[in-house]
Amino acid sequence: MDTEPLSLNHKRRLRKLRLKKYREREGLFLAEGRNACREALRGDRYPLREIIISRDLPDNDREWLSRELSSRTVPVYSCSRADINELSSEEHARGILVVCKSVDSSLDTPNNDQPDRIVYLEGISDAGNLGTIMRTSLWFGVNRIALGPSCIDPYNTKVIRASAGTIFGVSLIRDVAAEKLFSFAETQGYDLVATSPRGGIPPAELKKEGRIVLLLGEESRGLSSELMEHAHTLVTVPGSGAAESLNLAAAAAILLYETRTVP
Amino acid sequence: MDTEPLSLNHKRRLRKLRLKKYREREGLFLAEGRNACREALRGDRYPLREIIISRDLPDNDREWLSRELSSRTVPVYSCSRADINELSSEEHARGILVVCKSVDSSLDTPNNDQPDRIVYLEGISDAGNLGTIMRTSLWFGVNRIALGPSCIDPYNTKVIRASAGTIFGVSLIRDVAAEKLFSFAETQGYDLVATSPRGGIPPAELKKEGRIVLLLGEESRGLSSELMEHAHTLVTVPGSGAAESLNLAAAAAILLYETRTVP
Repeated sequence: MDTEPLSLNHKRRLRKLRLKKYREREGLFLAEGRNACREALRGDRYPLREIIISRDLPDNDREWLSRELSSRTVPVYSCSRADINELSSEEHARGILVVCKSVDSSLDTPNNDQPDRIVYLEGISDAGNLGTIMRTSLWFGVNRIALGPSCIDPYNTKVIRASAGTIFGVSLIRDVAAEKLFSFAETQGYDLVATSPRGGIPPAELKKEGRIVLLLGEESRGLSSELMEHAHTLVTVPGSGAAESLNLAAAAAILLYETRTVP
Repeated sequence: MDTEPLSLNHKRRLRKLRLKKYREREGLFLAEGRNACREALRGDRYPLREIIISRDLPDNDREWLSRELSSRTVPVYSCSRADINELSSEEHARGILVVCKSVDSSLDTPNNDQPDRIVYLEGISDAGNLGTIMRTSLWFGVNRIALGPSCIDPYNTKVIRASAGTIFGVSLIRDVAAEKLFSFAETQGYDLVATSPRGGIPPAELKKEGRIVLLLGEESRGLSSELMEHAHTLVTVPGSGAAESLNLAAAAAILLYETRTVP
């Protein structure tokens, strides 16, 4: 596997990708680790631009990467452990970084290509929750996630880490305003299912057939009244009352599980 | 509300509680924020020893705390914003810290007092997952969590933060060796339910009646063969195959949901 040394300027540019402003400007994002690298190589949603490895990368990781790259051409840059630590957002940098294009998808695909399940997130600010929701969605076969205008950037490194490589299997659609969602749901025949702290039907009674958009809001505030009013179905996760609220990613897991189309 | 200034020595002792060694030695742990403070005041599992507030605590928080303390005597210490930031493990310290006794519970309560559901965790190293599992457990009315010897310390500040105050409603039993669990399950009539990546029954087929211990292991390794062999039931969360694994707290949410005793 041929590698080129990572120049100082190159490293500087990559470091800046930790900031949203630069991710937007460059249209790129960073993901870390062998899992992310494997998924980036396999997927085609987020074209892989380059790979950065630490010179002290363990032999087995190096051999694995060589094999993966035997039939593909991707530039590989090598750098010191100190450099990779600087680029990494993890406590223990894993020695492999990938740089990918942040390509947003669109809701407006031909009607026949629309999936049966879409997740719509409003006002999500927690990186861990967003990444975990990507991962759980993909686990249940849901590969399209739309984000309202006030959500955290899904290309944020912490989101990508929490997604455990699954971002590469998920199509993201950013900045989907509520009105856009409503008209989309109406023309394409989706039911909007909103989580409500009380008064909704139990998750087990959610319909399993047909097209559904699952609406999820931030834990503390919940969904906006605009979304609640436009929802076709309200759903409430039963609880003992002993805990004030459920973690958003935990609630999402239960709803994705109950509306799954996988056997 | 009477407050005393926080002395330098006192602050130093509290700072050390970020380390497991000192938590063990002092038998104390720290929790942050108004939610945690409210739950610490209400619960009696983890006796509240003292409260630390920042001198710039907003008036509404201060008034709330005064009301809560009108019928109770708990020492309150005040300190500067810089001091509270030093004690806090959060990016934006919330101005209220509570110091509580870390009182472990025991599995050996009288048979009649045993709850129908217990969660047993093996080898959990992720603080966010453990805190979220506490929260989800309590949501579904499960208030007893046993931890195997190799788990992260549940009094770790990040665990407590992720639990969102629910630790105060949960009885924790640390260092429960597998053999101890097996003999407990046998004498007290619990079924051990183990998550398995494949080959188990679907979560919906888990029995809802009787006594269950839900066994959960770390995502990457799963449960040890010892636990798997002793389990009465294996359960597998169905998936599309598109994601390699499910986040542990997400899997726990689905299993707690399917075995819930709440309506």
